[in-house]
Amino acid sequence: MTVVFEKIAFVGLGLIASSMIWATKRAGSANTITGFARSQATRDTARRIGLCDVFDTVEEAVKDADLVVLAVPVGAMGAVAEQIAPHLKAGATVTDVGSVKRTVIEAVQPHLPDNVHFIPAHPLAGTEHSGPESGFASLFDNRWNLLVPVENTDPDALARMRTYWEGLGANVDVMEAEHHDLVLAVTSHTPHLIAYTMVGVADDLRRVTDSEVIKYSAAGFRDFTRIAASDPTMWRDVFLNNKDATLEILGRFTEELFALQRAIRKGDGDHLHAYFTRTRAIRRGIIEAGQDTDAPDFGRSKVGK
Amino acid sequence: MTVVFEKIAFVGLGLIASSMIWATKRAGSANTITGFARSQATRDTARRIGLCDVFDTVEEAVKDADLVVLAVPVGAMGAVAEQIAPHLKAGATVTDVGSVKRTVIEAVQPHLPDNVHFIPAHPLAGTEHSGPESGFASLFDNRWNLLVPVENTDPDALARMRTYWEGLGANVDVMEAEHHDLVLAVTSHTPHLIAYTMVGVADDLRRVTDSEVIKYSAAGFRDFTRIAASDPTMWRDVFLNNKDATLEILGRFTEELFALQRAIRKGDGDHLHAYFTRTRAIRRGIIEAGQDTDAPDFGRSKVGK
Repeated sequence: MTVVFEKIAFVGLGLIASSMIWATKRAGSANTITGFARSQATRDTARRIGLCDVFDTVEEAVKDADLVVLAVPVGAMGAVAEQIAPHLKAGATVTDVGSVKRTVIEAVQPHLPDNVHFIPAHPLAGTEHSGPESGFASLFDNRWNLLVPVENTDPDALARMRTYWEGLGANVDVMEAEHHDLVLAVTSHTPHLIAYTMVGVADDLRRVTDSEVIKYSAAGFRDFTRIAASDPTMWRDVFLNNKDATLEILGRFTEELFALQRAIRKGDGDHLHAYFTRTRAIRRGIIEAGQDTDAPDFGRSKVGK
Repeated sequence: MTVVFEKIAFVGLGLIASSMIWATKRAGSANTITGFARSQATRDTARRIGLCDVFDTVEEAVKDADLVVLAVPVGAMGAVAEQIAPHLKAGATVTDVGSVKRTVIEAVQPHLPDNVHFIPAHPLAGTEHSGPESGFASLFDNRWNLLVPVENTDPDALARMRTYWEGLGANVDVMEAEHHDLVLAVTSHTPHLIAYTMVGVADDLRRVTDSEVIKYSAAGFRDFTRIAASDPTMWRDVFLNNKDATLEILGRFTEELFALQRAIRKGDGDHLHAYFTRTRAIRRGIIEAGQDTDAPDFGRSKVGK
């Protein structure tokens, strides 16, 4: 039990915040954990499951906190920062867990007083579930957390955030905001948009009934539906806030897709075979890096009826 | 132990054939199981793991078989049918497990003698692994197997195939070939092409190094890499043989993708939110139908370093 921050306040009590809270308790890295969520129902649920000391106003929740974690959708970060700014303790650290970094920094930083450290972060972890009951302590184990420091960041405050996240089980890297947003457009944002699109197309097709799409989903489609079951508000905000990088990667994606489409139309089997062969190497790399299981089909347990 | 076919011969000894063999043994639905694979290495492996009675020629393997299972890539089905036709026993049943049905029927049926039943099939099951060592007996448990009978199919032969597949653990549906190819273009073929494309794009990007794509893959991308690790030859043949339906669904997909892309560019958050909300319902349907696990992140076990 090594206390890193005496008191930590969470604004927003969804999947990431609730997982951070359980992981913080597991690590013993805080003596007091407070929380606030805008929705009464979320606060009630958080109280019922004993997540943390839940307050009905954000001002009370952040009072005297040594670390304030902004865990709301990316589009709400600026307004929350503005609201809490006058109530922050001198010397406190503010962090966020948003999936986009440049626009969040632009939205949050201007509101924060000079006597507060701002250390933006992005834990690359999650599931398709959301809400305060979806969190669990091991969510960040062996996952990467990216710290995206702003100009003139205090090295001690940055080191403390690293220590905190390592205590939650994560590996920590430091990255520049623009680069973060491009990397995530590749590894997360564009794949999510594509999955949403494919599931939407299946939903639209009237000749292929819902029932058939669902019954026969195990042929590959069901993996897309998991990703496309993620929180709509969070993802709306991600795309609106990482517009440039997402559109750039989408452009690359459609270019490649059209090339493969043309190969199918022309019957160019060599092109298809070569393309499908080189993509295998990336999968091997991910497994060797310990970022996914090699068990067939993700080791999904046999699903009962 | 209910014997359905006295002797079953497998042509091709990859993931599907080897899983069928283990499931056939589990069910006791054959007294003799023979097999052939074109590659010497595959035959050696199959012999080493005791998969079945492996022969060095396909003619020997299919001799006297009551059921012959064609388990080769879709593009090789016609040539195999031509080769085995003169050696088939009168009254035998020939089936295939190809992921496309119309072109396989067109390629296989003309070669088969009149005294043989042809019952095309497609088990909707698999993993990203391939080869004779990747098979396991429970692969078809609670998965759907589609039987796609040709004109004037003998009802008894069809019923026997249903019994056989139910013995392997599968649910069985009967479907018409054109409809099968369209449904699979939605639930399998287009999702696979999209996954291959996204992984290829990531591989191409030089500013985002391989190492970053791999390290930070857990944000969504790694799910695409599993699908894109599937057998290249099998998938090349699927796209070449289900060209029309795949191109049709791809057209729908790009239309929708462009609409979402425009919404991102214009900052139309309402459009995005509405789209991302309705796709959640399909996921719920799949879980309620017992076709996937509700465990977060597919219940993937924590991955060590």
